[in-house]
Amino acid sequence: MIVTVTLNPALDLTYQLDGSLSPGRTHRVRAVDERPGGKGINVARVLHQLGVAVVATGLLGGTQGEAIRTRLAELGLSEHFVETGQDARRTVVVVGGGVSTGLWEPGPRLAGRHLDDLSHQMAHLISHARCVVFSGSLPPGLPSDAYRRLVALAAAAGVASILDADGDALTDALPAGPTLVKPNLDELGRAVGHDLSTLESTAAAATQLRLAGAGTVVVSRGALGLLAVTPVGTWLATPPRPIEGNPTGAGDACVAALARGLADGNPIDWPELLRDAVALSGAAVHRPVAGEVELEAYQRYRPQITLERMG
Amino acid sequence: MIVTVTLNPALDLTYQLDGSLSPGRTHRVRAVDERPGGKGINVARVLHQLGVAVVATGLLGGTQGEAIRTRLAELGLSEHFVETGQDARRTVVVVGGGVSTGLWEPGPRLAGRHLDDLSHQMAHLISHARCVVFSGSLPPGLPSDAYRRLVALAAAAGVASILDADGDALTDALPAGPTLVKPNLDELGRAVGHDLSTLESTAAAATQLRLAGAGTVVVSRGALGLLAVTPVGTWLATPPRPIEGNPTGAGDACVAALARGLADGNPIDWPELLRDAVALSGAAVHRPVAGEVELEAYQRYRPQITLERMG
Repeated sequence: MIVTVTLNPALDLTYQLDGSLSPGRTHRVRAVDERPGGKGINVARVLHQLGVAVVATGLLGGTQGEAIRTRLAELGLSEHFVETGQDARRTVVVVGGGVSTGLWEPGPRLAGRHLDDLSHQMAHLISHARCVVFSGSLPPGLPSDAYRRLVALAAAAGVASILDADGDALTDALPAGPTLVKPNLDELGRAVGHDLSTLESTAAAATQLRLAGAGTVVVSRGALGLLAVTPVGTWLATPPRPIEGNPTGAGDACVAALARGLADGNPIDWPELLRDAVALSGAAVHRPVAGEVELEAYQRYRPQITLERMG
Repeated sequence: MIVTVTLNPALDLTYQLDGSLSPGRTHRVRAVDERPGGKGINVARVLHQLGVAVVATGLLGGTQGEAIRTRLAELGLSEHFVETGQDARRTVVVVGGGVSTGLWEPGPRLAGRHLDDLSHQMAHLISHARCVVFSGSLPPGLPSDAYRRLVALAAAAGVASILDADGDALTDALPAGPTLVKPNLDELGRAVGHDLSTLESTAAAATQLRLAGAGTVVVSRGALGLLAVTPVGTWLATPPRPIEGNPTGAGDACVAALARGLADGNPIDWPELLRDAVALSGAAVHRPVAGEVELEAYQRYRPQITLERMG
């Protein structure tokens, strides 16, 4: 069983307009789509779609939290979120005239005791897990080492962990020894403090994160695929051509593939796992919303991914 | 006690951005304000602010409905909404760079049985009421004569009623004999099928609505004040100068004043009541959101309103 942890989940709303969004005017929304969101929940949805046993946990509350729980139940997805009593955030994407406009609410202001409650609950979940995934931003009010505490729980229990985070939330957690971290190029550049323009500088930056505590560093390079620095070698996994579509959620699909691979256990066949992760990312690009993949595209892409050993 | 009826309530969200709304981009929302909305609820909030006993009813459901109920409870406002099990709509106003952009979700699709449930519940509420206010649009799925059925309940019980609606929802209800209807110029024009450019044509159109069944017709002329055709005469009530600010909610404040006047009972001193209604509308313009009035401005405006008898 895989556990995904989402500290700042969202109710993701998509508003379809008949025409374009026009600032200063009032628009009737033609259709409203409402989904449970936040990166960890997206990872859980992809795993669920792949038929992998998964439980979504994290911090959730208020009436938006209730809406998220209802939607997860409708999807048949198990959840054990800690109730915070504070309304979860919404994200609104307004689609009109071929253009998408995003409005991201801030998360609720939470406190250390919410993290304590989650740590307590996770101790139980982890004992049944093969891999724990920590994904996404921290809500306001939580300390930047929140993920360090949670990753340490997994490490202490000998359970594999994946961390997909940015900024201090990522770097502060490295000493706890996450099994795998998955920054994109921008996130990796922020973590090491400089831009990454070449494959060599990217591999060097990934190695820096390994030295800081991460077991494996998988760098997502957008439509160009993945660069992975693992304990047993460095690989580049590349799709045959850039895949057109909606890149939202490709990173979450990648994490879902990596989590399944880690959960399946040692020894890990890294080239096969990276091939799988690139193919599943590409299959997410075919879907208009995060948290879903096109299974047929996944099967089609899988044999097309090129693997190259770099070191 | 006054009862307000809102068939299509909303959770009104205001998103404050740091800069302008820019289509095609993603924006972090700096602050989220969440209020219970819909015209009948706004009327109830104004009456509550004035210290008038009021109960809000109507049709409400789902997690948004729960959020609306919670907000009404926080305001100390009594509510007896019928639970529909269908999510109430949201409205989103995005404020950035001095510009407001509106996004109106459609209401939930309801059915005749929801109206039956409400009629049943209203029979009880009406027996305790001095005036019933019906305000705002009908949700999808309700017949256009929904207000006719509800107004007839009030009429049968001998309780005064006010209807503030548009289109068929207004015209189909007139035969039930609402005590007062309050169209604005556009709504009155639509009801009689032609534009209204003069005071005379406006008074003639208002008289047409009286002939169709309305007891009194109070026409809101925006910043110019009110024209009222009553059973005992026609008056024009005018503020000393157009009042600058946010016109949203001025109509709801006007209805609140009229409801209080009708509830206070016969004989109605129409000039005094119209003066009151114009002053309270002006006091709503000073507030950035609907459902609130600035009480000091209300007291200041009251003696400044000009009354003119037209017939």
